[in-house]
Amino acid sequence: MTSISRWDGLLLDCRLASMTANGIAYGAIENAAIGWKDGRITFAAAQSQLPDKPESLSVNVESVEGAWITPGLIDCHTHLVFAGNRASEFEQRLQGASYEEIARAGGGIVSSVRQTRAANEDELFAQSLPRAQALLQDGVTTLEIKSGYGLNLETEEKMLRVARRISAALGITVHTTFLGAHAIPPEFSGRQSDYVDEVCVRMLPAIAHAGLADAVDAFCETIAFTASETRRVFETARGLGLRVKLHADQLSDGHGAALAAEFNALSAEHLEHTSETGVAAMAAAGTVAVLLPAAFYALRETKLPPTESLRAHGVPIAIASDLNPGTSPVLSLRLAMSMACTLFRLTPEEALRGATVHAAQALGLLDRGTLEVGKRADLVLWDIQHPAELCYWIGGNLARRIIIDGCRIS
Amino acid sequence: MTSISRWDGLLLDCRLASMTANGIAYGAIENAAIGWKDGRITFAAAQSQLPDKPESLSVNVESVEGAWITPGLIDCHTHLVFAGNRASEFEQRLQGASYEEIARAGGGIVSSVRQTRAANEDELFAQSLPRAQALLQDGVTTLEIKSGYGLNLETEEKMLRVARRISAALGITVHTTFLGAHAIPPEFSGRQSDYVDEVCVRMLPAIAHAGLADAVDAFCETIAFTASETRRVFETARGLGLRVKLHADQLSDGHGAALAAEFNALSAEHLEHTSETGVAAMAAAGTVAVLLPAAFYALRETKLPPTESLRAHGVPIAIASDLNPGTSPVLSLRLAMSMACTLFRLTPEEALRGATVHAAQALGLLDRGTLEVGKRADLVLWDIQHPAELCYWIGGNLARRIIIDGCRIS
Ligand SMILES: [Zn+2]
Ligand SMILES: [Zn+2]
Repeated sequence: MTSISRWDGLLLDCRLASMTANGIAYGAIENAAIGWKDGRITFAAAQSQLPDKPESLSVNVESVEGAWITPGLIDCHTHLVFAGNRASEFEQRLQGASYEEIARAGGGIVSSVRQTRAANEDELFAQSLPRAQALLQDGVTTLEIKSGYGLNLETEEKMLRVARRISAALGITVHTTFLGAHAIPPEFSGRQSDYVDEVCVRMLPAIAHAGLADAVDAFCETIAFTASETRRVFETARGLGLRVKLHADQLSDGHGAALAAEFNALSAEHLEHTSETGVAAMAAAGTVAVLLPAAFYALRETKLPPTESLRAHGVPIAIASDLNPGTSPVLSLRLAMSMACTLFRLTPEEALRGATVHAAQALGLLDRGTLEVGKRADLVLWDIQHPAELCYWIGGNLARRIIIDGCRIS
Repeated sequence: MTSISRWDGLLLDCRLASMTANGIAYGAIENAAIGWKDGRITFAAAQSQLPDKPESLSVNVESVEGAWITPGLIDCHTHLVFAGNRASEFEQRLQGASYEEIARAGGGIVSSVRQTRAANEDELFAQSLPRAQALLQDGVTTLEIKSGYGLNLETEEKMLRVARRISAALGITVHTTFLGAHAIPPEFSGRQSDYVDEVCVRMLPAIAHAGLADAVDAFCETIAFTASETRRVFETARGLGLRVKLHADQLSDGHGAALAAEFNALSAEHLEHTSETGVAAMAAAGTVAVLLPAAFYALRETKLPPTESLRAHGVPIAIASDLNPGTSPVLSLRLAMSMACTLFRLTPEEALRGATVHAAQALGLLDRGTLEVGKRADLVLWDIQHPAELCYWIGGNLARRIIIDGCRIS
């Protein structure tokens, strides 16, 4: 009976892209088996090292005939809770409307804020859930969701509650991030400093108290919040015991990377304009670089993030979808990985590392991101012959089976 | 009983993107109904114009609660039958290997030729079918498949038979194209003219005789076949009663567009380097311009096709995936439509027209591509609030229901 009770599940004849640093590309293990018990991986190695002969096993054991298995993918930067969408704006721009004309017609981020405020919690949940499902179907088992289309306490809380409900509904881990400092809400127009007061004095403490946020983010940019305003938000977060991350240096070098590093941020994100100094500061602080190639693509940016410098300084690079209605309406993390290769010239292995082990690090979730004993049993079986195919194919449904916390969910 | 037998299917409360020229964007019809009988659309108009009151109907009638319906999408340019893939090459290039190094290691198109020749017909079918399924799941109900990885009669025939089998297996229309003049096979190295002889004297007549090809294509380019070689292929095709199309002006202006027009080609494809003269010739000949933005993206091209000139001359623009293992491993036509907007600055309406009515024209299939009485009942119901979303969302599974020839297939 021991051979039966040892595993809740055991997959034989598989190939593992373990993403551990075992000296082989992708941390690959061929002719492997992977087993788990109580939601944790208890075996991930060559099948020949199994403690029991496979023939003696019968319950919850299955050959997967050479299938490649990766850790469940981790999308560490999304804004997927929002109401409405901005397809009409997308269309207007392609019909020749300028950003100013669209803004004057009520478009841009304020349109998402208006619709997200107007939606009740159930509507917001119903509209957002399919986006999380799309990511999940493509292999994402952990994702981050930011607030930031509420810009008032009530709506920011509503967004974060919806993020928690998505986690419960789909069985995936959702890491929530409070992004009150995303934009200036219309009612604070011309009073940016008052809004920062509102974020720091009222919103952030209330949200921390309610346990709705796992981390705090801000948008530090010439068109958003200054470095000193960001600093206030981060100091408040630190006082409340919350880790921080930062939208940094996307459109200009605002020294956001260095600021993030100064606060031991989990991650700094975008980074197209980050200087070598910023990269060095991130390296020293252990801050992960989160690159967002789908936003780069959708905005037709030309300034590439400093990937060479990040590599040289040993900064871990994560890749995320940035799923949002304005600048990255992408419904697949694999597409962002593919763009990381094609547009940012990352290798497929770097991109997969960026969507597994480095993404886990960007969320401070050290219990996942690799296939090794003790880690969460979050894994995906793929219809591929080689892990590079995860980035090579553009689109498509390659995930054959998805297992979260040891439970098969598709 | 008449009210029951009038329809094989009738969908009420829908919104039609009919793609007819009814003076409204997308040929839209709100508060519409669409009905069909024996695989043909028999009603597509405002619901108030239905000959019977909906209340009197019961069989095969359903309200779809405001869902948008478009014609089934048409992917008019794919190379989706091939064995193996080129993910390892993709990876090597990102690891810094040059094209020359990859070619020396047996990579490039010859690698697809080698693997496609080596696969037996069942293997080739099994490997190719999932790619057609991926397109279908994303809304494609008609697609074109080219040969061109055989480059000998036996393998070219095998590829085209596999294309026919895909049609039978999935119930979709597959338009087959003979592309023997895709590249010079290794055994004809240095004897390009002998290979053109082989194509014209042996391969093309045999394939035409076997009824395996609906059209004939060639790759007219400095790295492939010359204009005069292409002309020979086209003259042979004309003699056999087959329509032609052309891979033209992708990497340089080889006057391919004008050559295609001279032979009244159904379409000329790629066209990044086509001049105004070429566009004018296409307009005069009624040749459709097929743009392939996913290949443009994957190759990181910078020279845009002459969209302004195509519009000015009234050349119909179609959009296709170019699904192929080397330069466009894309598994979704909607992604190509999205790239047509973002990269080529087409409007979402132009992109949708390019994947419906104009793509039908590019295949010479005038029985489809719009929702109007008499056309084939190929339609897709989408989970969207506006047709622009088909191009706005990057990835995702938006097709809720697919109907081909009046039969629900998902
Ligand atoms: Zn973001
Ligand atoms: Zn092609």
